[in-house]
Amino acid sequence: MNHAAKSGSLTRLTGIDDVHMAAKRINNLVHRTPVLTCQALNEALGHRVFLKCENFQKVGAFKFRGACNAVFSLDDAEAKNGVIAHSSGNHAQALALAARLRGIPAYIVMPSNAPQVKKDAVAGYGGYITFCEPTLQARESTQDKIIQKTGARVVHPYDNDLVIAGQGTAALELLQEVPDLDIVMTPVGGGGLLAGTALVVASFNPKVKTIGAEPEAADDAARSLAAGHIIPSENPATIADGLLTSLGSRNFEIITDSVDSIVTVSEASIVRAMRFVWERIKIIIEPSAAVPIAALFEKRVGQGPKNIGIIISGGNVDLGSLPWNHES
Amino acid sequence: MNHAAKSGSLTRLTGIDDVHMAAKRINNLVHRTPVLTCQALNEALGHRVFLKCENFQKVGAFKFRGACNAVFSLDDAEAKNGVIAHSSGNHAQALALAARLRGIPAYIVMPSNAPQVKKDAVAGYGGYITFCEPTLQARESTQDKIIQKTGARVVHPYDNDLVIAGQGTAALELLQEVPDLDIVMTPVGGGGLLAGTALVVASFNPKVKTIGAEPEAADDAARSLAAGHIIPSENPATIADGLLTSLGSRNFEIITDSVDSIVTVSEASIVRAMRFVWERIKIIIEPSAAVPIAALFEKRVGQGPKNIGIIISGGNVDLGSLPWNHES
Repeated sequence: MNHAAKSGSLTRLTGIDDVHMAAKRINNLVHRTPVLTCQALNEALGHRVFLKCENFQKVGAFKFRGACNAVFSLDDAEAKNGVIAHSSGNHAQALALAARLRGIPAYIVMPSNAPQVKKDAVAGYGGYITFCEPTLQARESTQDKIIQKTGARVVHPYDNDLVIAGQGTAALELLQEVPDLDIVMTPVGGGGLLAGTALVVASFNPKVKTIGAEPEAADDAARSLAAGHIIPSENPATIADGLLTSLGSRNFEIITDSVDSIVTVSEASIVRAMRFVWERIKIIIEPSAAVPIAALFEKRVGQGPKNIGIIISGGNVDLGSLPWNHES
Repeated sequence: MNHAAKSGSLTRLTGIDDVHMAAKRINNLVHRTPVLTCQALNEALGHRVFLKCENFQKVGAFKFRGACNAVFSLDDAEAKNGVIAHSSGNHAQALALAARLRGIPAYIVMPSNAPQVKKDAVAGYGGYITFCEPTLQARESTQDKIIQKTGARVVHPYDNDLVIAGQGTAALELLQEVPDLDIVMTPVGGGGLLAGTALVVASFNPKVKTIGAEPEAADDAARSLAAGHIIPSENPATIADGLLTSLGSRNFEIITDSVDSIVTVSEASIVRAMRFVWERIKIIIEPSAAVPIAALFEKRVGQGPKNIGIIISGGNVDLGSLPWNHES
């Protein structure tokens, strides 16, 4: 992959070498998650589907890979004042745990309306939480204040080369285990997972397609790709709470170069796909993780049976508030 | 193991040889389920715990092993009129699927108040369902009528030598994968899983203990063992709906011979254990499967850290009706 050449920029972007370096760096820190298959799911979808279960990853999400790569890439001088991010969810937990393993502080700015289970988890991993109003402006200004006080380094949840490279390691493991895939799918929010995955897939075999899936109600990635420039979501409302953020600029560039298409799905089909996985595969996945499966239920992807790898992004759900209980 | 000698009876009871024969018979029909570990669970319990995940078994429960062994032990003449059982739950699904694989009919008598998800599953596996009043008398008389019409053979859910031997194959696989266990635990309802497990464990290494766990609210096994004869539960009410039945007589004999103890747990701790597993391990287990883990949370088992294998009995839950939603 040579994005710099393709996109006409002189800046060296993240490439497959960075993913291999990330894999080496975090190999002993992350779980090598299992790849699950389910006959009932294959029959329902008309494809052979391989689920790379990052819901079983540490902190319950792929986000630990990127955070870990970023935190362990810092030299001691860079690391000593700790790391910081504003995040409503899985990146917060991931950064807190990665920092704890490195022995440095993690400062986490969380919107006050983040799910309780995620607040508890960040605190459990030893993160220093500061709550703020649930607006991007409040999150950024709160973060800036803490940086001034502490000198902590920002680890952006997705618009960060080391984070993108770290997220790509899940696809690397998937393709090592199941090389004969036709398509690899991931959900897309900020685009860290999709960008990292696309780098790996394109380098592995250019014939394999990378497809991103997002909620219709938060379809900024599809619209941005169609327009050729980033169009942020405005107040998106979707059950897939990990996909509310808009594409980052590094992510947009890699996705433009290496992703074949972005498909969108309805809220109802996200809930249906999530419930199918819970009931038939007996694993807990979060709504965001169900989005690529929902796209297959909605026949949004290709003709005829394919071998499809899906990165199951995470399994962090507030069990006290499940979508099918709201419906009934 | 020589139960006949020990119990003074001349009848040959199920023994370890029967479990090995069962394993050979059903090996290609059942999933070899994974054994999972979880650092957070180990830390919470103060033990090293190995979960043999029969929630990932076909039909979502260990019951498929026993039903499969019983159905595939029949010769063609015995099988041709089909099989029958009355069951409110997992045995019904298990028998329906085993019969379908054998190509014979399965007649299932279900109480009208069985969870919808279990009714749907039995129908999905092609079982012929007859509903009846939710009393043992109605279940048995309905079953008798269908036998008179069809000539179907009864496969009892637990008080059946071939079923007991089939259930034992889960422990066989667990000990092959993790030989250095101090204790193996299972939930106990009718006692098929516990009896089959005890046969295997005692034959593998008499120093390894087998411990059954049941709800305080359905503690017939503990009371029966203490009394030296079967004392059935009367109208037990527990969230662990797989453990409502009382010990069978074959099960009682094997359990008396080979099980070290039966421990009991509160309803609240069953819910707590179940929720812990869902939240931290990201797998769906049913309340009955959480009972042995609840016993470890309640410190009902041994002193000091042990290596403890647990047969996770199943993962069939009505997602529309979860215990923590009733509480809040």
